Amino acid sequence: MNPERFRRIRETLARRQPDLTVLMERVNKTHNFSAILRSCDAVGVLDAHVVLPEKGIDLHHHTSAGTTRWMGIQVHESVDVAVQALNREGFKILAAHPGEGAKDYRDLDLTRPTAFMVGAELLGLSEEGMSLADETVVIPMAGMAKSLNVSVATALLLFEAFRQRQLKGMYSQTRLSKDEFERLLFEWAYPEVARIYRDQGQLYPDLSAEGEILS
Amino acid sequence: MNPERFRRIRETLARRQPDLTVLMERVNKTHNFSAILRSCDAVGVLDAHVVLPEKGIDLHHHTSAGTTRWMGIQVHESVDVAVQALNREGFKILAAHPGEGAKDYRDLDLTRPTAFMVGAELLGLSEEGMSLADETVVIPMAGMAKSLNVSVATALLLFEAFRQRQLKGMYSQTRLSKDEFERLLFEWAYPEVARIYRDQGQLYPDLSAEGEILS
Repeated sequence: MNPERFRRIRETLARRQPDLTVLMERVNKTHNFSAILRSCDAVGVLDAHVVLPEKGIDLHHHTSAGTTRWMGIQVHESVDVAVQALNREGFKILAAHPGEGAKDYRDLDLTRPTAFMVGAELLGLSEEGMSLADETVVIPMAGMAKSLNVSVATALLLFEAFRQRQLKGMYSQTRLSKDEFERLLFEWAYPEVARIYRDQGQLYPDLSAEGEILS
Repeated sequence: MNPERFRRIRETLARRQPDLTVLMERVNKTHNFSAILRSCDAVGVLDAHVVLPEKGIDLHHHTSAGTTRWMGIQVHESVDVAVQALNREGFKILAAHPGEGAKDYRDLDLTRPTAFMVGAELLGLSEEGMSLADETVVIPMAGMAKSLNVSVATALLLFEAFRQRQLKGMYSQTRLSKDEFERLLFEWAYPEVARIYRDQGQLYPDLSAEGEILS
């Protein structure tokens, strides 16, 4: 392993935010899906959550710029199941949807455990998704059109969380437990080797400070 | 004309920012092009600027959510010609491109006349484009991938300008001259009628406060 690359991997992992995520409810255009994953990577999302559209989607499309290697993608069979799982982990579900009672995204405290729920391109969020959210959030606009592209809207939400969390110092030391950090560091650095160890039911070996596998 | 719709048109026009724009240099995916136009509309861009990719692009694709009706699109034959035109109008050209000397987009004064120059999906800005920019601007990120989707990056830049300009009260009264406001109001409200008047070389008639054509 190139030591420079190993350092970059370690530094990126140290900025991952286990309490920031998105829940994509049936986003059905691959280019939007990929663009959202790139934004997730950019702001340090650890795991993204997906309810697949009926016809499915290519989870590892090339336009995701390889981000699926650096992020977990948790696929849920329904929005109900997804929200339950996120609630169990302590997330607040913020539904991106304009309308009565929706709050300006810049006025919310996004340093709390936050999951942005975003919907399909034309239909938006389902009624069920909306009803399961803790709050609804809106991006104020000054134009004639009433909505933004879904990957654009998601990025604006994520980067506002990024801004708030930077101000609070949440990227300056790792947010992961030591065990989780070590585990993910090994998987990011040596995905193939990690798979072999997992298949054999063995613990990963330690790594040196330069990223060499210590046998 | 429905009075409610006329009021919405007039209010939107009163928020348009003649000194905020984008210059798309050979953005070649229709969905990105459309997403960028929707973001432009949302933050009040009056005219967007385009250097077309070699194979052209559909300027009025449906995913632009009809925004091309509410915005001028100025097509230039080369980036050189586009930058000259923008410079003549007093714009600073900010090239979106990471690298040495690039400034954090949140540290720049985007209330000045600002044109964000953004490049093609895989290739980014051309060397010529880069050389013509007044400054380069970067969106700091915390992930493994080194770039964002182009429509996402453009939206983050535009909405930062929107934020700064809102704080400065630049959306609370019209930024257009009375003549330009009246002309555009007529064209937005009655595009077909406006065309007939233009074809006949006649001035537009006045409109009542409710948007009725006064003969």
